[in-house]
Amino acid sequence: MIPAEVNQSSMQLLNAHPQASTLPEDCKRASIDRSGYLPDSFADGVVFARSTEDVVLAMELASEYGVKIVPRGAGTGLAAGAAARRGEVVLDVSKMNQILSIDPIEQLAVVQPGVINATVNAAAGELGLFYAPDPASTAICSIGGNIATNAGGMWCAKYGVTRESVLALTVVLPDGQLLHTGRRTIKGVAGYDMNALFIGSEGTLGIVVEAVLRLRPKPIRTATTVAYFADQSRAAQAASAIISARLQPSVLELMDGPTLTAVDGAMGTNHRELGGALLLAQTDGFGAELEMQALVDAITPLATRISRAEDEAQAEALMEARRQAIPSMEKLGTVSICDIGVPRSKLAQALAGLAEIGEQRGVRIFTIAHAADGNLHPVIVVEPGQSITSGPPKAALGDMFYLAQRLGGTLTGEHGIGLLKQDWLEEEIGSRSLRLQRSIRQVFDPQEILNPGKGI
Amino acid sequence: MIPAEVNQSSMQLLNAHPQASTLPEDCKRASIDRSGYLPDSFADGVVFARSTEDVVLAMELASEYGVKIVPRGAGTGLAAGAAARRGEVVLDVSKMNQILSIDPIEQLAVVQPGVINATVNAAAGELGLFYAPDPASTAICSIGGNIATNAGGMWCAKYGVTRESVLALTVVLPDGQLLHTGRRTIKGVAGYDMNALFIGSEGTLGIVVEAVLRLRPKPIRTATTVAYFADQSRAAQAASAIISARLQPSVLELMDGPTLTAVDGAMGTNHRELGGALLLAQTDGFGAELEMQALVDAITPLATRISRAEDEAQAEALMEARRQAIPSMEKLGTVSICDIGVPRSKLAQALAGLAEIGEQRGVRIFTIAHAADGNLHPVIVVEPGQSITSGPPKAALGDMFYLAQRLGGTLTGEHGIGLLKQDWLEEEIGSRSLRLQRSIRQVFDPQEILNPGKGI
Repeated sequence: MIPAEVNQSSMQLLNAHPQASTLPEDCKRASIDRSGYLPDSFADGVVFARSTEDVVLAMELASEYGVKIVPRGAGTGLAAGAAARRGEVVLDVSKMNQILSIDPIEQLAVVQPGVINATVNAAAGELGLFYAPDPASTAICSIGGNIATNAGGMWCAKYGVTRESVLALTVVLPDGQLLHTGRRTIKGVAGYDMNALFIGSEGTLGIVVEAVLRLRPKPIRTATTVAYFADQSRAAQAASAIISARLQPSVLELMDGPTLTAVDGAMGTNHRELGGALLLAQTDGFGAELEMQALVDAITPLATRISRAEDEAQAEALMEARRQAIPSMEKLGTVSICDIGVPRSKLAQALAGLAEIGEQRGVRIFTIAHAADGNLHPVIVVEPGQSITSGPPKAALGDMFYLAQRLGGTLTGEHGIGLLKQDWLEEEIGSRSLRLQRSIRQVFDPQEILNPGKGI
Repeated sequence: MIPAEVNQSSMQLLNAHPQASTLPEDCKRASIDRSGYLPDSFADGVVFARSTEDVVLAMELASEYGVKIVPRGAGTGLAAGAAARRGEVVLDVSKMNQILSIDPIEQLAVVQPGVINATVNAAAGELGLFYAPDPASTAICSIGGNIATNAGGMWCAKYGVTRESVLALTVVLPDGQLLHTGRRTIKGVAGYDMNALFIGSEGTLGIVVEAVLRLRPKPIRTATTVAYFADQSRAAQAASAIISARLQPSVLELMDGPTLTAVDGAMGTNHRELGGALLLAQTDGFGAELEMQALVDAITPLATRISRAEDEAQAEALMEARRQAIPSMEKLGTVSICDIGVPRSKLAQALAGLAEIGEQRGVRIFTIAHAADGNLHPVIVVEPGQSITSGPPKAALGDMFYLAQRLGGTLTGEHGIGLLKQDWLEEEIGSRSLRLQRSIRQVFDPQEILNPGKGI
């Protein structure tokens, strides 16, 4: 039964699509992501696509009736890019969650958009391969969402972000037609890089229904070290020292003091006792141990304590502590996760600036960073139920953007603009670029039905 | 003095621009690249830009008077992407050839488009860094042209192509306005990936006037090996064996028998005596020797002779032999260089198919390949003065494309479409994609004045 307040065009689509639901609990669940943003209303309905045909039908109906569509994967986005409201229909692809094939010789996987990131890595791992972009949310985030935001993660320090690991896409365009981008070969320059255009486009150009992912050989060896520092400033200096020493760790993660306290609280560990900030470093390849020795040499003057993981279980426990950083904070309240990027040598300045913002705005900030990429996640934690999109949390978010801009950086390294960062996009990319990008969006979606108000 | 046959709008631009030349030798030189393509007429004139302002003025005049502009760097393109003819004006940026700055801490270089690839690497090398995309033409090709074609090279086996090493661009749009794309941080997802859209766009969207390049730490160690095989098929199998063994050489180049004969003839070496095909492999990093040992183990059952370079001079001599492959062929006649990409496991099949095409069409084919990427360069050599754009050479080029397509590959891995591959572009990318790409081109260049008839 379609509730009375649902708008006419949404109703036409929802009545005509066999996979549609208008159950209030479905509408509510499909309207919220993990950004902390609470929409003022919920979507009119949800289409749970189980096949490319379901997506094609949804988009054909949407363009016929002019229905606004919000694409959705696992709903783990951190910028409210998948938030939906009244007058919109969510197109949920989370049930399209199959790995269609893995080719161990070509080292690639063909997957549906709803497949979970960690599922790809588990399957690849059995063949001695891995999928490099590994957001901390690997256990719950989907490949489609990773593509929508050009997601990063810990291994990106050495292996690049999603863009470097997606070879080809099959996309359903807003009018329901299929488009193939990219190719199965490693290199190719026939035509514009349509693949890169879709990666990071936040569901504004089309719906990814299939992706060819590049897998890489699992490193033959890894070496993992955790180093503790008196404070975050010294940890940041150590990260810069590693880059300056021209080393190439595959993982280089920084956690500040408040984050260590949060992780200890959630996981029963004692990191905070051992230091005021932590760096987690991994090297890999045939020379992993030698490179780790050089890395340890580079940071020894700055660290208060350095310990090498003795086996894979110890290394994995350290990686898991980092992955649990944001869930640990979520136990303390509602979180607003910022995602600034700065030049790598400006890490210490960025951390100092963030501490200042916390003091001035009176908000609690916990910071983790992909230190080798200069990508920081300052997390604002407010009391449960308190708004993150107004008052001091919103003001602090703005301060963080201007801090990044002052240091020559960016508003978002890997989470996207979504809804939450709209205010600062034009200032970063410039009005001419924004106009050009909006014209490109028009080329793909002249009716403006895809993810309205999000991204560019 | 403007020759009489020059068209009216070209003349208006050439009269108004202080850096313009209409000398016949300038027009001729600026109308030809290294593709072997001979245009039936030459450009009306050349603007030798020495600054961003010169480029802005040229494009302002071009859009005012509706002049067709062919952007040009060092003119080393292999797809006739910089070929020009009557009714067109060449915008030559080769005199904008300065490295503006190198930041050794951030590991990036800011350069003008006319700077030579090898010049960047020489400057980076002094700081212990390198610029990864290294076309065989490194000594003569310019960064602007590398960006226009998303150029690859030997080190791309491990470090990716131009797209993976360009962080930001300053572009003059067709209307003379400036656009900034990308950013100086390693990661960033604010808006669409405009940077990637420009990289590989073959001068159809705007003129790059400044680029921020990502440099990487020079490997602390390298190990270089040359292996000889009875024939090209076995060399290709060996390359596949290396990939299957999940090794990651930084260089993996294949040269077939005819190429070895050509190189020996030009350089006085004796490679052809030692085998019917050659693989040149390099590993790098802290574990370079260990990884090379594993690589040698993987190919030993297939090779007839394997020798390790004993020092850097020997290694460099081997790399130089590969770089001289195409110049060596050019001594034998006019060359037409194909650039297909195939899935990496299909290398042997591709080589067999190429041999067949040579026989059937009665053309001489020399093949070199970036084996780790599945990117082959079959080079058709015809008598000096003979056309490469008609008759058997043209037919053979078509055959090569269909061979690549049959094997799941692409028309061009790193040279671009230019003029010479127009016939097969739509077949590869599909008509819907081509229409979308042309609409994107329209967004940037509504007057259709930039590089008409090239690329998409």
